[in-house]
Amino acid sequence: MDNPESSQSKPIGVFDSGIGGLTVVRAIRSRLPNEGIVYFGDTARVPYGTKSPETIRRYTREISSFLNNQGVKLMVVACNSCSATALDCVTEHFEGPVIGVIEPGARKALGVTHNGRVGVIGTQATVHSGAYERTLRLIAPEVQVFSTACPLFVPLAEERMEGREATRLIAEEYLEPLINQSIDTLILGCTHYPLLMDTIRKVVGSGVTVVDSAESTADASFDKLQEMGCLEPSNEESPLVQTYVSDNPLGVEKFCRSLMPQERVWVGTAQPTLIYPEVRD
Amino acid sequence: MDNPESSQSKPIGVFDSGIGGLTVVRAIRSRLPNEGIVYFGDTARVPYGTKSPETIRRYTREISSFLNNQGVKLMVVACNSCSATALDCVTEHFEGPVIGVIEPGARKALGVTHNGRVGVIGTQATVHSGAYERTLRLIAPEVQVFSTACPLFVPLAEERMEGREATRLIAEEYLEPLINQSIDTLILGCTHYPLLMDTIRKVVGSGVTVVDSAESTADASFDKLQEMGCLEPSNEESPLVQTYVSDNPLGVEKFCRSLMPQERVWVGTAQPTLIYPEVRD
Repeated sequence: MDNPESSQSKPIGVFDSGIGGLTVVRAIRSRLPNEGIVYFGDTARVPYGTKSPETIRRYTREISSFLNNQGVKLMVVACNSCSATALDCVTEHFEGPVIGVIEPGARKALGVTHNGRVGVIGTQATVHSGAYERTLRLIAPEVQVFSTACPLFVPLAEERMEGREATRLIAEEYLEPLINQSIDTLILGCTHYPLLMDTIRKVVGSGVTVVDSAESTADASFDKLQEMGCLEPSNEESPLVQTYVSDNPLGVEKFCRSLMPQERVWVGTAQPTLIYPEVRD
Repeated sequence: MDNPESSQSKPIGVFDSGIGGLTVVRAIRSRLPNEGIVYFGDTARVPYGTKSPETIRRYTREISSFLNNQGVKLMVVACNSCSATALDCVTEHFEGPVIGVIEPGARKALGVTHNGRVGVIGTQATVHSGAYERTLRLIAPEVQVFSTACPLFVPLAEERMEGREATRLIAEEYLEPLINQSIDTLILGCTHYPLLMDTIRKVVGSGVTVVDSAESTADASFDKLQEMGCLEPSNEESPLVQTYVSDNPLGVEKFCRSLMPQERVWVGTAQPTLIYPEVRD
């Protein structure tokens, strides 16, 4: 591993199954304005949340290897499905520190709950992994966790169905079992879900605090780089957000401009692939 | 290319982005009971319908190359998005005859319409390609075609939301513009959509004939093999449906058993990949 001084000027690597992780990029840029970022969004193979752990682990290895070759100093796994099922795969191709979205989201939820009853919603892969439940209980063994998969939330968010009657009906169906458990905190365990924030808030009501892990993941990234002495001390101009996607770069460029109008964003394509001589899982 | 006699005993290759194309396999087995089938479903990269033509063309090349290596005598592209945007890519890796789902579906619709006003629903990729419209007009220049993309139908079908209020609301929103155009025939331009058949029929009403292209694709396959003298003349036992998927073989095996309980189906995994030295599109 490099010494801290030579690492300072390296960018932070961030990846997600699609473009949802760019909300994490925005939070990191806001918390760490001197740091350059290399992002990868796997828009040609999105979504991951409906796929098997084996496939998510394979894709995570491919992307980690790609970002490692870009010389990043920290890897942020901005995808809940990858964080929940494949965080260890990142270290096969990367020696530096790795931050997932599960632990920061769990810590934030534990900081706001009063009654110790926390709800978690996410993709099938994330919920079936039990990663939030495990992490929450590891930090606070007395916490009660209630989880449910919301597989239609990703397509509803992508189709911009926020605020529609059909979306409300589906959200009620997914969230009622959690409300019936008297949760006072709800973790959005998927980077797409903030795009349905109004509907989710209306359905759960004002008595439930909704937790989005983007900001706490940015805080965790700051803490880790500071601890290692790897923070970029200053930067004359706003550093680049280098964005690679596997499909639809023009659509992603447009999305970046609307999400982060003040940032210098470059968008290109890449197809991370490793050749697997045999099944590894 | 092989002579007809040596080709007779070869299987038919069929592929789709996921498992929807197995409804086409079922129709082919029913029309051509002596023929063996090698199927590939790209469950690790599904769905295709939201992806760019370039990506769909790349995936189509990879799968065609894989099925060509299995020694198939006919290639059936059971995916509407691939048939609409990448039929020519199949011939880069396969010298035999290629049948897509667009033309058989279009011919069937033209056979049932009385007023010459045909609706088409499909994925974004299929509808944006204009392939159904082009094919319908090529065969019957006077036909009027009204198309609309229904991007939420695939996830709704996969989540088995058939018959639910939210599904009806979304279907009404998608289909009302077509109903207002007085169509009397509606082509289901996606292999997933038959799974929402009841909802779609209720919304369009009994005055509209709903066309699913699985059976007409099987008929076209029969005609093509007969024309070439490549029909397998007889078979003592029911030939195998060899099914390869890129993810979730156990779930696919279960689905096959419920869809085709009488068939001998083998399910395994494969990851068709070609190395692309440079962008080809």
